[in-house]
Amino acid sequence: MTFSALDSFILGPLFATAEMRAIFSDEARLRSFLRAEEALARAEAAFGVVPEELAPAIAALTPAGFDMQALVQGTVLAGMPVIPFVAALQSALSPGLRGHVHRGATTQDIVDTGLVLQMRDAFGLIEGALADLLQALEDLATRHVKVPCAGRTYGQHAAPVTFGFKAATWLGGLTSAASDLPALKAKVLLASLGGPVGTLASLGEKGPAIAKAYADDLGLGAAPLVWHTDRTPMARTGAWLVLLLGALAKMAGDIVQLASTDVGEAAEPYQRGRGGSSAMPHKRNPVSSTIIIAAHEAAPGHLTTLNIAMRAAQERPAGEWQAEWHALPQLFGLASGALHEAVSLARGIEVYPERMLSNLGLTKGLLFAEGVAALLGNALGRAKAHVLVEEAAGEVRASGASLQEVLAREHFASSIKDCPIGEAFDLDPHIAACAHWVEAAVKASQSVRAVLISPPQPS
Amino acid sequence: MTFSALDSFILGPLFATAEMRAIFSDEARLRSFLRAEEALARAEAAFGVVPEELAPAIAALTPAGFDMQALVQGTVLAGMPVIPFVAALQSALSPGLRGHVHRGATTQDIVDTGLVLQMRDAFGLIEGALADLLQALEDLATRHVKVPCAGRTYGQHAAPVTFGFKAATWLGGLTSAASDLPALKAKVLLASLGGPVGTLASLGEKGPAIAKAYADDLGLGAAPLVWHTDRTPMARTGAWLVLLLGALAKMAGDIVQLASTDVGEAAEPYQRGRGGSSAMPHKRNPVSSTIIIAAHEAAPGHLTTLNIAMRAAQERPAGEWQAEWHALPQLFGLASGALHEAVSLARGIEVYPERMLSNLGLTKGLLFAEGVAALLGNALGRAKAHVLVEEAAGEVRASGASLQEVLAREHFASSIKDCPIGEAFDLDPHIAACAHWVEAAVKASQSVRAVLISPPQPS
Amino acid sequence: MTFSALDSFILGPLFATAEMRAIFSDEARLRSFLRAEEALARAEAAFGVVPEELAPAIAALTPAGFDMQALVQGTVLAGMPVIPFVAALQSALSPGLRGHVHRGATTQDIVDTGLVLQMRDAFGLIEGALADLLQALEDLATRHVKVPCAGRTYGQHAAPVTFGFKAATWLGGLTSAASDLPALKAKVLLASLGGPVGTLASLGEKGPAIAKAYADDLGLGAAPLVWHTDRTPMARTGAWLVLLLGALAKMAGDIVQLASTDVGEAAEPYQRGRGGSSAMPHKRNPVSSTIIIAAHEAAPGHLTTLNIAMRAAQERPAGEWQAEWHALPQLFGLASGALHEAVSLARGIEVYPERMLSNLGLTKGLLFAEGVAALLGNALGRAKAHVLVEEAAGEVRASGASLQEVLAREHFASSIKDCPIGEAFDLDPHIAACAHWVEAAVKASQSVRAVLISPPQPS
Amino acid sequence: MTFSALDSFILGPLFATAEMRAIFSDEARLRSFLRAEEALARAEAAFGVVPEELAPAIAALTPAGFDMQALVQGTVLAGMPVIPFVAALQSALSPGLRGHVHRGATTQDIVDTGLVLQMRDAFGLIEGALADLLQALEDLATRHVKVPCAGRTYGQHAAPVTFGFKAATWLGGLTSAASDLPALKAKVLLASLGGPVGTLASLGEKGPAIAKAYADDLGLGAAPLVWHTDRTPMARTGAWLVLLLGALAKMAGDIVQLASTDVGEAAEPYQRGRGGSSAMPHKRNPVSSTIIIAAHEAAPGHLTTLNIAMRAAQERPAGEWQAEWHALPQLFGLASGALHEAVSLARGIEVYPERMLSNLGLTKGLLFAEGVAALLGNALGRAKAHVLVEEAAGEVRASGASLQEVLAREHFASSIKDCPIGEAFDLDPHIAACAHWVEAAVKASQSVRAVLISPPQPS
Repeated sequence: MTFSALDSFILGPLFATAEMRAIFSDEARLRSFLRAEEALARAEAAFGVVPEELAPAIAALTPAGFDMQALVQGTVLAGMPVIPFVAALQSALSPGLRGHVHRGATTQDIVDTGLVLQMRDAFGLIEGALADLLQALEDLATRHVKVPCAGRTYGQHAAPVTFGFKAATWLGGLTSAASDLPALKAKVLLASLGGPVGTLASLGEKGPAIAKAYADDLGLGAAPLVWHTDRTPMARTGAWLVLLLGALAKMAGDIVQLASTDVGEAAEPYQRGRGGSSAMPHKRNPVSSTIIIAAHEAAPGHLTTLNIAMRAAQERPAGEWQAEWHALPQLFGLASGALHEAVSLARGIEVYPERMLSNLGLTKGLLFAEGVAALLGNALGRAKAHVLVEEAAGEVRASGASLQEVLAREHFASSIKDCPIGEAFDLDPHIAACAHWVEAAVKASQSVRAVLISPPQPS
Repeated sequence: MTFSALDSFILGPLFATAEMRAIFSDEARLRSFLRAEEALARAEAAFGVVPEELAPAIAALTPAGFDMQALVQGTVLAGMPVIPFVAALQSALSPGLRGHVHRGATTQDIVDTGLVLQMRDAFGLIEGALADLLQALEDLATRHVKVPCAGRTYGQHAAPVTFGFKAATWLGGLTSAASDLPALKAKVLLASLGGPVGTLASLGEKGPAIAKAYADDLGLGAAPLVWHTDRTPMARTGAWLVLLLGALAKMAGDIVQLASTDVGEAAEPYQRGRGGSSAMPHKRNPVSSTIIIAAHEAAPGHLTTLNIAMRAAQERPAGEWQAEWHALPQLFGLASGALHEAVSLARGIEVYPERMLSNLGLTKGLLFAEGVAALLGNALGRAKAHVLVEEAAGEVRASGASLQEVLAREHFASSIKDCPIGEAFDLDPHIAACAHWVEAAVKASQSVRAVLISPPQPS
Repeated sequence: MTFSALDSFILGPLFATAEMRAIFSDEARLRSFLRAEEALARAEAAFGVVPEELAPAIAALTPAGFDMQALVQGTVLAGMPVIPFVAALQSALSPGLRGHVHRGATTQDIVDTGLVLQMRDAFGLIEGALADLLQALEDLATRHVKVPCAGRTYGQHAAPVTFGFKAATWLGGLTSAASDLPALKAKVLLASLGGPVGTLASLGEKGPAIAKAYADDLGLGAAPLVWHTDRTPMARTGAWLVLLLGALAKMAGDIVQLASTDVGEAAEPYQRGRGGSSAMPHKRNPVSSTIIIAAHEAAPGHLTTLNIAMRAAQERPAGEWQAEWHALPQLFGLASGALHEAVSLARGIEVYPERMLSNLGLTKGLLFAEGVAALLGNALGRAKAHVLVEEAAGEVRASGASLQEVLAREHFASSIKDCPIGEAFDLDPHIAACAHWVEAAVKASQSVRAVLISPPQPS
Repeated sequence: MTFSALDSFILGPLFATAEMRAIFSDEARLRSFLRAEEALARAEAAFGVVPEELAPAIAALTPAGFDMQALVQGTVLAGMPVIPFVAALQSALSPGLRGHVHRGATTQDIVDTGLVLQMRDAFGLIEGALADLLQALEDLATRHVKVPCAGRTYGQHAAPVTFGFKAATWLGGLTSAASDLPALKAKVLLASLGGPVGTLASLGEKGPAIAKAYADDLGLGAAPLVWHTDRTPMARTGAWLVLLLGALAKMAGDIVQLASTDVGEAAEPYQRGRGGSSAMPHKRNPVSSTIIIAAHEAAPGHLTTLNIAMRAAQERPAGEWQAEWHALPQLFGLASGALHEAVSLARGIEVYPERMLSNLGLTKGLLFAEGVAALLGNALGRAKAHVLVEEAAGEVRASGASLQEVLAREHFASSIKDCPIGEAFDLDPHIAACAHWVEAAVKASQSVRAVLISPPQPS
């Protein structure tokens, strides 16, 4: 399975998307290194530090031209991929240009900038999928805004909600997460250029201007000062991806339960062969939710790594920086797969209103006991009403009759008389309340979604 | 030591501030419950749902009036503190008001709103201390902007920086963290009011308006829909506190190393008896940094808890919500203590420029080898220059003479001739480069600091 | 709530036992410090290093005699509780003895040994509760060995098991965890005595023998060499406590689902007022399971702290050691509360066999489809049988008739003829299979339980 | 870089060994699936359940014969690799055997057993490397048992130790971790065979015996009952690997500091080009330690995943099981690379006794102040002696003279008179103390090492 299931030829496609995989491929990494060196060359040429021909010469190179085996051996020897990469890059250039490559830069500048370029692409995918998901959930919530079902707290039926309200709660968490994206990207998509100890001293007075030109060329932000050992960008990125996965897991966890045989109120989108069992022809396992939940449980540990690694010693640490490589790309991988499944769920989940209705009857009217007590309280006083309803509830449990039937019995009916307790069993006020919140959640989502980049697929 | 060192009578004051402790005391928790019930009463009275007298009657109560022992017993029985709390609250009110308390609300509304009120106070403390810290670091960086010292990567001397530049790097991470605060507070300081399943259905059409009035009364935000099981606010708060602790630990880790006997370039502020040893009269342990580092290592685990707990089932989960109580307040506690120590460090750290200067000579000039090679490269060509410097470096290591002395030897001097390699040993360009970044970091900090709330202590 | 919910006056008793709380009280900590100093004095007296009177003099002291406020102030100043403790201890002794206290020891020796003494008591509680739990689960599994219920995979009914088999699975995980205890205690209940840098050099040639005598006096193990910066004992202890909590959470999570309104196959032990709701008289929330699940989610983060803190620099680190104080005692607290609730669950869980039986019918016989296909396969060949059963399953879903009814229909019956497919719907073979595994699990538990220390309560 | 740096073509070899990579390859996974199915067939044939020819037929197959692309597509569809794997396996067999494959088993049986087979191989590698490491550290500690250097606590010089003592401390933690291996392997190397819900009911009374025969055939243990949802084996394995990495990180962290320019007491083994810098010819970065530290920081998060995933619902969970795939193999990968580097460090670390000696003088004799005070205490009384030494220490700091010189000054010498304080500056007692502990640590290691399997490379 390879060390990470995400990278397995067999298992990987189950857990991460092909698009995200391409972004974090070895080839893409080399391409991002080349892009960083090209931008550096162009920025330095603009200030007369290197020849004008250097940047175009680098731009003409592709990862395919590199001897991967040599890179591996060089990396293992040097302990760092940029050292053999720069050597290979020099060899690929004309002799007159070789001496000008990587001028003033350090390995971390290229590795970090390269990673940020990959992150930018990755955020693009995430953002598109997230916009799709918000829209699909808006539709789902709206479509089922009036489909009543049991609200469950601690696993117990508590009071009625609607399925649209449930979907709106999922939407709420995801809207909240999505709303962070613009500010987040501005704070983390930063170019890195500081040289050996972050001062860019070897470039003299031109240093800061070159750093700015380099960032501009890449379309990245420029930090006030180098972030070699200020790792807030990486930790912040990880924290957000884990937050996103948490919001997705809330949705997936609910669906697993709703789709359980015992609840039976929903099912994952039907696809022949999906979630099947070789032994049990009747099984339909919630595969999409399973993938999301697994991602959610695998994610916080990676964030821990990023957080611990913030204690980056002096001008470069021994280990903390490399620890990030073990963690950050996997968070993007996990998020890609989880989002993909969530979009599929939000678009295709099968909802069974009849079962929801029949489940609403499981407590034989006790689900409405609070409302009955409230109505009776107006007539009898709250304390007396509470006692009466408690007694009635006891009879419901003991006899198997419904609360309505029990309350119609002689000894209760005499106390109740003209009190319109039938109203308490009315689902409409619950539905109306849900409708309000669904509308509010959809509006909030729409305004966040408008800010996200254009979603790739109009739905 | 109690279960948490933070709560220990003996150890607690070492690790958290008394002000933060007061915010998360049992008494403060009860006070925040009362405040939430009072706001609910006022909001409901405005809509004719409960009597006008209820809110003032609740406002007149204090935690001191509650029988704590009864609350404990009730909590253990019910599994939830709000149930005995509401019962006690009712008993404390006149009979005519009792039936109106807690109308339409559920336990989670009171517990979450109460916690958010505590968090608001806690953020106030954090914000004040953070403003103090930024200012102290701005001063520190500015004061030492031209004090040269060795830049260290992987523990090795790499090239010169200044101590002001180091301080600016600490400032950079903390400025970045601080810049999140305004948006963060807006997203997490939210009132909670949803009733048993989050719909507020028992309040009918007035529900949403009452929820808004309740939030306004408390000075908190109102989420589009209830966040009973959308736990992004809690996870987001935790993520930020851990980010802050990461930025603090970067600073503390550097100081431990700088203050080590072997480096000797700095010391924690001197206070008689601080960091001493009963056995070793010469010891001066870096206590403040120790406290910060311990906080940093204890923090990410709590965030993991908050992240895992995001999978909150349906309308209320069994366990995920309570797990937050084990984690979130401790993060505020750890942050309070770490910030307190960091302010003390930033204001009082002792810096030893002479030792810095002498340490700059530890590599006998090799620290400047890159610059020498660059200068020689102009004259001899890069490749030839590189070989020459490598040979010279070998002689430095073998002979113990300095690079300058070695390069003055016959066999090198002939190649070097008129090349002004003395320039390469000049610290000034390094100092100048550092000065630029320090200025940029200070400016960035100042603009963030201006947004933070008024710091409690003018400095 | 205090920083940790475990330490809250109101919430603490919900999450940890009073006995465990007493073990980790400030008073108990002081007592363990005194015990360590006493043992040191006795060991050193035996080798003529200190006067014989010292140990009895220390033994006569109690925590009550210490000025706690002075200890706090001294701790905050020194950054370490042992420094003011030793000073206070000296003051409490006669002048002639003062100079002999703490001879050769360092603060870490006393703090670590003291903590280990607390851990020994804590393990005693855990071991007793665990023995109770194993026994209660053995009984539970045995009692319900033949009570059939649905086996559920991915939330879907899969095939029949028995409730006793479920309980045996819980027992299996806990037996496995419990079986580690003897070896674990031997590896972690170690005395610590190394002096300032771990060499005990100031005691000269007598050092090792004194260290051995000290450990013997305390009834603790003696490590081959000092473990000041070998933190495997602490990390190993944490890992085991988290493993235990994982095994408990498996049980609690299952119970929450079984006790849900939709499944209704079990309920937590009934206690008036337990798990109630002020608003909803019909609710019975699974409070015990909730507490266990919250503990499970709060625990792994603490282990992360212990694992990270293993990188303890040189002869004593700055922060890693203190980080342990934030984590380890809380794991004992969480485990105590979770075990307490688990024992109560295992002893008192209410099981509803009728509902289990009725739930077994939810899939209208499809639960047995695998068996039907197997039987038919003998007659028709496996492939043909599979197709036939698949078709029948489709009719079940479409028509609402049961699989038995559908297979009796003309077009199937003709193919089936004499094949005794009725056997496939027989629960007995499933029950018999379960009975075997239950017996095996109970035996394994009994043999582990025999090794645990005498459980405090015979049941 | 792929999602995990461990799986990157370029970076992977830096962080994990090729041997470990081979064990967790997709091909090896398929091979382990085949091995499990073969064992199942042999066990079932022995009981007359399947034809005798089935096992040899499966044994004749190799991963190379499988259409990987079809497996991927099938996996993504089914959500589980075993479903398409079994289908492909059936196709590869003669028609008469197809129907007998995978009889009574469920996907989890094959996946878990397959993973355990991989783990067994992985433990073999770990065990061999660990034996090598213990031996190398025994040699290192013994070789330098009398090489004095400063003991450092909180970064401060505290008292003398020897380099052998330091190495013995590293050895201590690793010996402790290694000593767990035999019991650990016995508890985690378990076969899994339970069928759909763990009861093996479809095999009737033969079930348990077949399960035993299956385990025997594989050379694995047989759990008392199925561990489908008792995940103690996986969590326990993870906990141990993280413990191991913690012990390795203690060593690596120390080496980074010892190898720093400022301390200069050691260096990683010299290899041309290792740890170099393209820009700075004088740099020699501690690459091996860096790799170990990065592994240590990436590891605890994976354990958190395994711990959280222990809450595996009912007879199979939706997500918790899959989460393990994201975590466990990476822990083996990280451990392999870290161990490899540690062996190289232990064998080849360069130690500089002269620098150690010169560093021992950094505090100008204050390192021995404790001893001086102790000696004087015998003559003057402890209190008077302490004051005298404190005064002298002040003069040392103020004047730059050594403690010996200061004590020779008139105003001190008169008090000291005949007291042989020169003894206090003697390194020999410290060396002797260290020698004792080194010997003890080496003995403990040897006895653990004798139990480990034969190391692959005699050294």
